[in-house]
Amino acid sequence: MTPAVHAAANLIGPHLAAVDDLFAAELRSDLPHVNALVTHVGRFRGKMLRPMLVLLSGLAAAPARPSPEEPDNHAAASPLSPPHITLATVVEMVHMATLVHDDILDDADVRRKGATINHLHGNEAAVLLGDFLISHAYHLCSSLRSNPNGQDYSRLIAHTTNVVCEGELTQNVNRRNWKLTEQTYFDIIYRKTAILTETCCRLGAMASTSHRFAVEALATYGKKVGLAFQIVDDILDICGSQKAVGKSLGTDIEKGKLTLPMIHFLKHAAPQHRALLIDLLESAEHDRIERVRQLISPSSSITYARRHAENLIAEALAALGTLPASSASAALAEMAHFVTARDR
Amino acid sequence: MTPAVHAAANLIGPHLAAVDDLFAAELRSDLPHVNALVTHVGRFRGKMLRPMLVLLSGLAAAPARPSPEEPDNHAAASPLSPPHITLATVVEMVHMATLVHDDILDDADVRRKGATINHLHGNEAAVLLGDFLISHAYHLCSSLRSNPNGQDYSRLIAHTTNVVCEGELTQNVNRRNWKLTEQTYFDIIYRKTAILTETCCRLGAMASTSHRFAVEALATYGKKVGLAFQIVDDILDICGSQKAVGKSLGTDIEKGKLTLPMIHFLKHAAPQHRALLIDLLESAEHDRIERVRQLISPSSSITYARRHAENLIAEALAALGTLPASSASAALAEMAHFVTARDR
Repeated sequence: MTPAVHAAANLIGPHLAAVDDLFAAELRSDLPHVNALVTHVGRFRGKMLRPMLVLLSGLAAAPARPSPEEPDNHAAASPLSPPHITLATVVEMVHMATLVHDDILDDADVRRKGATINHLHGNEAAVLLGDFLISHAYHLCSSLRSNPNGQDYSRLIAHTTNVVCEGELTQNVNRRNWKLTEQTYFDIIYRKTAILTETCCRLGAMASTSHRFAVEALATYGKKVGLAFQIVDDILDICGSQKAVGKSLGTDIEKGKLTLPMIHFLKHAAPQHRALLIDLLESAEHDRIERVRQLISPSSSITYARRHAENLIAEALAALGTLPASSASAALAEMAHFVTARDR
Repeated sequence: MTPAVHAAANLIGPHLAAVDDLFAAELRSDLPHVNALVTHVGRFRGKMLRPMLVLLSGLAAAPARPSPEEPDNHAAASPLSPPHITLATVVEMVHMATLVHDDILDDADVRRKGATINHLHGNEAAVLLGDFLISHAYHLCSSLRSNPNGQDYSRLIAHTTNVVCEGELTQNVNRRNWKLTEQTYFDIIYRKTAILTETCCRLGAMASTSHRFAVEALATYGKKVGLAFQIVDDILDICGSQKAVGKSLGTDIEKGKLTLPMIHFLKHAAPQHRALLIDLLESAEHDRIERVRQLISPSSSITYARRHAENLIAEALAALGTLPASSASAALAEMAHFVTARDR
């Protein structure tokens, strides 16, 4: 955890602990073998970025409170409510489910420096565990009534997972499509990644306020941060060190999934370099992944993608800037900076 | 479709057509490749047993209406409401999702006489399509408010899928466990199969009446029918002809999943036959599945399992018998008989 994320986590520390507790309570089973799998997958729980987005958005959108210095009021009480905790737990569970199923799609062996479920227990257990997590996410979510404005949290979450699945299906059908456009790439990463971070911020805000403006500003922030996050993830798949990142790398190359640096490279690199990249992507040689990484890492295509991510972060910060200043919005700003600064 | 099921379908024909329409409308995507997969999976839609259970239970639980002969009333109007249609569509979608993921777990190539998604498009597409179906099931379900008595349909459906996943996980962890007991077998088939048919009947009844007695009687019927259905499915995996059944057979044997006939055989057959069964289950010979089927098919273990199913059907009919007679309950009785009579 970077200092920035650490500071944000401090602001919402007790609530994150409550999310942890609810996560464990929701998944507890009377079957020991189910608990064993759940415990293992619990180790993948890393930065809790998505619950943090819900909680910090909830704080940032909450109506201004009297100063805590004023005596005789309950200003010290958090504006975060039980629905915030539930929603934060639901999105974390949805995210964990997508990780478990993603690792099957990617044949990944390593996740957060531990063995993946598919690697340890086979694809069968991984399919089922992902289903179990998503089922419990909806189950937990159905414990919530609509918010006071009648907007339905369950409907929004289910809509979000619909779109995530479409994004993954689009990515899957475009494997080994060397003509993938930037436009389709952005459509894919919006659907598979950014809509969930957008929804996190929207849910947190919705549970705090009925002011449409604040909800939309935070949703925009969440969307832009999610897009930038995925671009950086795709850069790390090419340039990162597996030791630092802690998960299988080169899987985009291995699975024939073009990402922003590769798309740029195929359009703008010298012709012989473009031809070499296609040859390597199509080859079956054992060192092809490493050779693709060595070909693209030093190129301007990485710079191009990184600049894209930085621009998105600037847009995210601009959206945040339309809200009243608060420690929560400062923490969200720090989280945005962290997205492009991270090496893992 | 047998005559019995055909008669039942006639009674609820227009509503089943509405389920078909809602199923297609809910899954329609702006992405052509998603629609193509959904169309393919639509071909697996067979008997629509689960929507029929919802609709017929809805009719069977509805308060008695004035006779249709009486003039000047709207007795001809069906007591089935839009929530019945939605619930029937949701359970069909949940069922389709489990079929798609089951076919991955079973490495099955054939389903309803067509190629499975995993066989045609790979495991990746099958994982994602199953996720897409389950996501849309919850999405559609979240369009429903609670019923007039405040019972939450979404919560019950999510609880049901939680338990289904636990059943599948328990089955998976017990693969190649030759000491599996009847008790664990029944726990597995209740969780993976019978809870969904139980929930179908419960949902249909809940949407029609607040009378707890009728709801519980229909839930009992659904549970017993589901247990019997699974036992017959497990018998067909051993004794059925793939041509008649229309899906890959022998998968229980191939995957080391003990079913009721095998459990009985391992406990009651002559010692040399028991030893032979274990040898075959553990062997890697290409004809082992056929040899297991030939070993068990003529044995009393099949009779034993079939009698178990018949007893469950008798219990289902007894539960039905506590309700007022109606054409809907007659149709449910015929469906129960069909479960043990079927050869596919």
